[in-house]
Amino acid sequence: MNAPTTIQRDLRAEFPGLVTSEGKPWHYLDTAATAQKPRAVIDAMARALGEDYATVHRGVYARSAEMTLAYEAARRKVAGFIGGTEEELVFTRGATEAINLVANTWGRVTLKAGDRILLSQLEHHSNIVPWQMIAQQTGAVIDVCPLTADHQIDLGAAEAMLTEAHKLVAFGHVSNVLGSVLDAPRAAALAHNVGAMLLLDGCQSAPHMPVDVAALGCDFYVFSAHKLYGPTGIGALWARAELLADMPPWEGGGAMIDRVTFQRTTYASGPQRFEAGTPAITEAITFGAAVDYVESIGLGHIHANEQALVARLRRELGAMDDVTLFGPEGSAGIVSFTIDDIHPHDLGTILDEANVAIRAGHHCAQPLMDYLGVPATARASFGVYSAEADIDALMAGIARTRKIFGKG
Amino acid sequence: MNAPTTIQRDLRAEFPGLVTSEGKPWHYLDTAATAQKPRAVIDAMARALGEDYATVHRGVYARSAEMTLAYEAARRKVAGFIGGTEEELVFTRGATEAINLVANTWGRVTLKAGDRILLSQLEHHSNIVPWQMIAQQTGAVIDVCPLTADHQIDLGAAEAMLTEAHKLVAFGHVSNVLGSVLDAPRAAALAHNVGAMLLLDGCQSAPHMPVDVAALGCDFYVFSAHKLYGPTGIGALWARAELLADMPPWEGGGAMIDRVTFQRTTYASGPQRFEAGTPAITEAITFGAAVDYVESIGLGHIHANEQALVARLRRELGAMDDVTLFGPEGSAGIVSFTIDDIHPHDLGTILDEANVAIRAGHHCAQPLMDYLGVPATARASFGVYSAEADIDALMAGIARTRKIFGKG
Repeated sequence: MNAPTTIQRDLRAEFPGLVTSEGKPWHYLDTAATAQKPRAVIDAMARALGEDYATVHRGVYARSAEMTLAYEAARRKVAGFIGGTEEELVFTRGATEAINLVANTWGRVTLKAGDRILLSQLEHHSNIVPWQMIAQQTGAVIDVCPLTADHQIDLGAAEAMLTEAHKLVAFGHVSNVLGSVLDAPRAAALAHNVGAMLLLDGCQSAPHMPVDVAALGCDFYVFSAHKLYGPTGIGALWARAELLADMPPWEGGGAMIDRVTFQRTTYASGPQRFEAGTPAITEAITFGAAVDYVESIGLGHIHANEQALVARLRRELGAMDDVTLFGPEGSAGIVSFTIDDIHPHDLGTILDEANVAIRAGHHCAQPLMDYLGVPATARASFGVYSAEADIDALMAGIARTRKIFGKG
Repeated sequence: MNAPTTIQRDLRAEFPGLVTSEGKPWHYLDTAATAQKPRAVIDAMARALGEDYATVHRGVYARSAEMTLAYEAARRKVAGFIGGTEEELVFTRGATEAINLVANTWGRVTLKAGDRILLSQLEHHSNIVPWQMIAQQTGAVIDVCPLTADHQIDLGAAEAMLTEAHKLVAFGHVSNVLGSVLDAPRAAALAHNVGAMLLLDGCQSAPHMPVDVAALGCDFYVFSAHKLYGPTGIGALWARAELLADMPPWEGGGAMIDRVTFQRTTYASGPQRFEAGTPAITEAITFGAAVDYVESIGLGHIHANEQALVARLRRELGAMDDVTLFGPEGSAGIVSFTIDDIHPHDLGTILDEANVAIRAGHHCAQPLMDYLGVPATARASFGVYSAEADIDALMAGIARTRKIFGKG
């Protein structure tokens, strides 16, 4: 792993967030919550807000036309990043809003009383609550697919559960708690076999592995920019063109209309129909810059580096008698664990004193916590800038915590 | 006006967007579409994305706690800017989404078949289409208040139209096309007199005049950051605390929940209930920086400067026989006009060659265009950085356009 280590050392310097206020290295192991931003992304935002700034889709002057081209180029770039086209990609406030959009448009016109939606036990709240809300409004029913012994979505069970009444399967492509990677093509085949659509929550897959929506076979794919080294306040919904074309608008306002009168309003076609109001212009353009950044490193390299770090961390934690490891081997950049008699929050707080940042809590996945029988886990997650030194610091911090708790 | 001119000259230099790519002054007269950003705002964004960056409301480490404090301080600041409190302010993707939020929460539980909503003839599409959509879903009916001869919302007519069946009055506080300023306290009294709520679209008032929601008497007030020298991708909904407390959630996901199980989900109280998913963290903080910037200049000063520019432009345009001026005297920073035999788009394009940016079109207010009997207007709008030189350049450009059209 010499080559990756070299590149990591260079990459780390590109992230101004990876330094503490005292100028020390910050061992940031919470990239699954949100990724730090490289200088290239921050600069793209500053340029878009500064010398390039203008509105889009409206002005008759040249700078607005240029900004519109940049905005639409970002759409093309973000869509292409996951193997889609610009006609299929809607910019949303984030992945959560993207799922709500599908529920409130496709879901509202498709689901009827008695229809069924299949979720899984490991879903993030954002892939549960929108479906509960639309189910309540339409009379649809939610089923929950169990997990395998090593905490992957049990597709054998899914196959047995799916019926013609199922209109949608909505699964996390990668679990934000466990790092479990779904066999998406098989999930797609199972869903399509009963005439259901497959929505993938890609928040934790897009940053960690190459994604091609055609190869995955999904019908909807959502992800967020801020977990992909991009800005907050923007995410994306990819939907198959035929599905998007039939979806009614959700939010009303400027830019999404064709013609407005008080008697009757007609709507724009294409993704713009779902982007009411002045869009998140500089966020979209900076989302594009984040995609450029990730592609300049390559997801193959990112994936290999993260896999090596996951393997080491699981091996070292797994050698400890009082540690419970969750999730499968080969998880995508995420390791969840607990240590007997040490609450994850206490571990997190003590680690923070040593400039190591992990996440402790339910990770917006309370039903999974209930299933695992724990109130919370500690979670370390990796990104492009993660390196062996981060694990060294984490392990030293765990050793120190043990001592404090009299477990040394 | 010596003092304002001096301050304007200084202010202009703080906006990197006010220079063309050739390094010449850009006469930006499209602030009503979106405002340019001062260096202080751009720097705040860069810092939030860089050395300060972390997620909010989740991390156990200190930087996340600090970011959460900064995010909530921004909420307090933005709320205070319009005389509200932090418990009453929801961050949204923009003003358009804020109106959609009210329609889909308050509107959905309040409106029944036969209920009525009063809008006005001058509303922006974003204050029409969401109400059309919810009216269609609930069976409510929309009424349209006409305008006075000088293009203000005719509150005398509103008084005659309002009945006990009206549950909502939704008016633009300042027209984005005409600059007409609503007599909001009177509108509030009329609405409340029949038991209706008053929603004000404040997109064009918050940047141009001091706003105090208590003095205005409104029940909902929405505005966007990008028109207030802040970032794109964020806006705010202010709602009276009692109203907000009773509004059901809209989008589901992380952060807005109390407890999630597959059987039953309970929701957070307060503004967070409406902020599903990772929020627009850096945008909220930078929105706060924009408010700081505006307050450092003072809305009293901004308003006086813009009023002087509006008066001059209306006087000079009004002296031309072939110019039609829309809107009242004393409009808030916005002047809409047409020149006989010159299409606004042609005017806008020729002005662009002289580095003057105006807006030409329907301004997302097609029903108002129908009412005015024109397909489009030319619109010049002012901001903190606007100065006499911008009007000089505009008038020179209009003279040149006349010559090109053989009207010299």
